[in-house]
Amino acid sequence: MENIKKYVAENQERFLEELFGLLRIPSISSQAEHAPDMVKTAEYWRDSILAAGADKAELMPTDGPPIVYGEKIIDPALPTVLVYGHYDVMPVDPVDLWNTEPFEPVIKDGKIWCRGADDDKGQAFMHAKAFELMMKTNTLPCNVKFMIEGQEEIGSIELNKWLDTHADLVKSDIILVSDTSMIADDVPSVTVGLRGLSYVEVKVTGPNHDLHSGLYGGAVANPINVLCKMIGELIDENGHITIPGFYDEVLEVSAAEREDMARAPFSLDEYKKSLDVEEVQGEKGFTTMERTGIRPTLDVNGIWGGYIGEGAKTVIPSTAHAKISMRLVPNQDYKVIGELFCKHFKAMAPKSVKVEANLHHGGYGYVSPTDTVAYQAAKRAVEETLGTPPVPFRSGGSIPIISMFEKKLQTKSILLGFGLESDAIHSPNENYPVHRFLQGIQTIPLFYRYFAEGFKK
Amino acid sequence: MENIKKYVAENQERFLEELFGLLRIPSISSQAEHAPDMVKTAEYWRDSILAAGADKAELMPTDGPPIVYGEKIIDPALPTVLVYGHYDVMPVDPVDLWNTEPFEPVIKDGKIWCRGADDDKGQAFMHAKAFELMMKTNTLPCNVKFMIEGQEEIGSIELNKWLDTHADLVKSDIILVSDTSMIADDVPSVTVGLRGLSYVEVKVTGPNHDLHSGLYGGAVANPINVLCKMIGELIDENGHITIPGFYDEVLEVSAAEREDMARAPFSLDEYKKSLDVEEVQGEKGFTTMERTGIRPTLDVNGIWGGYIGEGAKTVIPSTAHAKISMRLVPNQDYKVIGELFCKHFKAMAPKSVKVEANLHHGGYGYVSPTDTVAYQAAKRAVEETLGTPPVPFRSGGSIPIISMFEKKLQTKSILLGFGLESDAIHSPNENYPVHRFLQGIQTIPLFYRYFAEGFKK
Repeated sequence: MENIKKYVAENQERFLEELFGLLRIPSISSQAEHAPDMVKTAEYWRDSILAAGADKAELMPTDGPPIVYGEKIIDPALPTVLVYGHYDVMPVDPVDLWNTEPFEPVIKDGKIWCRGADDDKGQAFMHAKAFELMMKTNTLPCNVKFMIEGQEEIGSIELNKWLDTHADLVKSDIILVSDTSMIADDVPSVTVGLRGLSYVEVKVTGPNHDLHSGLYGGAVANPINVLCKMIGELIDENGHITIPGFYDEVLEVSAAEREDMARAPFSLDEYKKSLDVEEVQGEKGFTTMERTGIRPTLDVNGIWGGYIGEGAKTVIPSTAHAKISMRLVPNQDYKVIGELFCKHFKAMAPKSVKVEANLHHGGYGYVSPTDTVAYQAAKRAVEETLGTPPVPFRSGGSIPIISMFEKKLQTKSILLGFGLESDAIHSPNENYPVHRFLQGIQTIPLFYRYFAEGFKK
Repeated sequence: MENIKKYVAENQERFLEELFGLLRIPSISSQAEHAPDMVKTAEYWRDSILAAGADKAELMPTDGPPIVYGEKIIDPALPTVLVYGHYDVMPVDPVDLWNTEPFEPVIKDGKIWCRGADDDKGQAFMHAKAFELMMKTNTLPCNVKFMIEGQEEIGSIELNKWLDTHADLVKSDIILVSDTSMIADDVPSVTVGLRGLSYVEVKVTGPNHDLHSGLYGGAVANPINVLCKMIGELIDENGHITIPGFYDEVLEVSAAEREDMARAPFSLDEYKKSLDVEEVQGEKGFTTMERTGIRPTLDVNGIWGGYIGEGAKTVIPSTAHAKISMRLVPNQDYKVIGELFCKHFKAMAPKSVKVEANLHHGGYGYVSPTDTVAYQAAKRAVEETLGTPPVPFRSGGSIPIISMFEKKLQTKSILLGFGLESDAIHSPNENYPVHRFLQGIQTIPLFYRYFAEGFKK
């Protein structure tokens, strides 16, 4: 542990500089014009892994951005850790709410401010530097493989296909991922549950062209009004989602488990204060933590239609649009839920409009057992670095690829994330505390050590 | 009439070329960057009036775009016609739906395609050319004044103020306006009623910054979901607006009047076909014509919030916005209605969000009597040009300034519009049939003649 701390202390300036180089490339996977940036980011990753001491690292082509694969095999008889991460980031709008340039990292108040600082460039890059540390200090206790993709934020479409033909290449004993948050800076946790996701896009069409709202208003269905009414009816007064069959497969959590979860520290007052809301809102009969941890949800992530510029325009638009996502819990199937949504949304539309509803992408939920060598290694490593044993925590977020790994590689993942909720991932002013970045680099080698030791037994 | 036709036939190419010069200036009043275009358009108008033979024409400064005032006083003892029009136009988005450049007029299929071709550059410019015709053929039978403003599409704010100090300057016996449509190309009509307008903008704020919909979804109010639900509840299952007090001042139209109105030719099948909708939608108990003519409405003209770009983003936005307008009928007061809306909208919001609602602009409705010299002159002129007497028609649209004229100038207006509903005003591919433009220029001198004659008696 002292050696680890020493190496990190001596090299932390360079670690940050190298991370900044990665952060500066605007690798937004959902925007086609950034395709060249995706390749640049992948190349940066390849070079980083090679420089750290990998036997090989390369860009594997796909129909989308390339997958970076690298490895250091020290002994085929030893266990293998597969590091998964993603080099793509979320869009940055609304840009005017950023206090700094979205793609120019700045350190202020002990935090790195930049899109991707946490999700997932900052977190994934801890693994590159922890690997370097183990190589340079000659302490790598097992084999390591890297698989870094560029489509996590849009559903990992290409990685999904790629795994069908590369399962042998990435074969491992555990997949190690840092793409999640801990409960708080002083409350370490390891994520043992993720929600699934079903993301749909809908379009409501009224008249075949935009109309003057004076000449036609009141006599023709306005697609915005109709879309709003339909969305408003998707959740009832008790916060229940009204799509028929939506809850059919939900695995209810036992009273004992709920009691256990309720022990996690949580202050509703602080939560409300941090968000500046007078009241929280959600499904009746569940606490705030349960609403994000064990219950499915439906959120409109984007809506647009009509005139949205400066001033006023009296128009009845021809179309109105929304992006809607549902977070799912075990055992909901995102494809089934997507179909139920689309069917219901079309069925509830009045005859005065036409409705399109399509599943955008999705992923299954995930639950990780805690009685495994890998979880125990993570627990011990975190306790040693942060001073407190971690709480096993079910996150409300989704990393669809984690459940896909289980399906396609028959391998479990350890979600050893160092983010904090205040990191504002997916939002303006994303940030990542410098000390969390360094703690991550210190913790990862310990995980390798305890995992390799536990595996031998 | 033969002289009129001859002059129009000999000069129509030039009339169109001159109109095209006016159309090419992108005078969008709601967008601040077009301020210089507003001045250019006003100068074009001034020069057109002067060239046609006015004694004087000038740009009158305001805190917004200038007002063009011009006059030809042939004898103070004769009656005076005040021509009102506007030189500003609506925004052009969504630009990708235009088949031609929005500000490059093109004649195709007998129509002029351009933003403003009808509303109101094309229609108002008929008056400049009709005035020229009367001057050149020495047939102007009375005095004429021009008052052309640049803010009609955003509520005529500056003209409203300007009238307080210039009522004497624009004193007249009738205000003549071409900014409305006829029922159909073969069904001439004169608009005798306009709806009022109350235009509000609302903002719903949830958390104080954008959130990750996975980590917070289900536990925090999503302002888009809330906004949709609130909008959905503004109109009930019978198409009634649910704002308390909304209908209190509505002047109900008598059964006899409704029977009379029902005689206007209207085919619901053709209406639906032209809009490509399977069913119409509106207030229960009223026909389609009544829904636009005599009943108030509520339409969302624009909505936006969250991620509206390409692809997907799993965000709970901090805010969601909508522009909402209500068309009003006599005797609804747009300020009262705006206040009722804002009060209700704030009251219906759950405590989990904050709501702002503000009145953008508005105007009163208008009803024109048909037993006046002016209406009879318009009727005779239209019958002579188009071959059929016009139907007196209540339009669903609003020209707030018309009721303001009545309040501030104590002068009635004649709404002698030559537009057609197919002109797609306020929409992509706005157009104005060339023959309607020429018919207008032919009809206006006849109106002057019969109005001056009738006035003498």
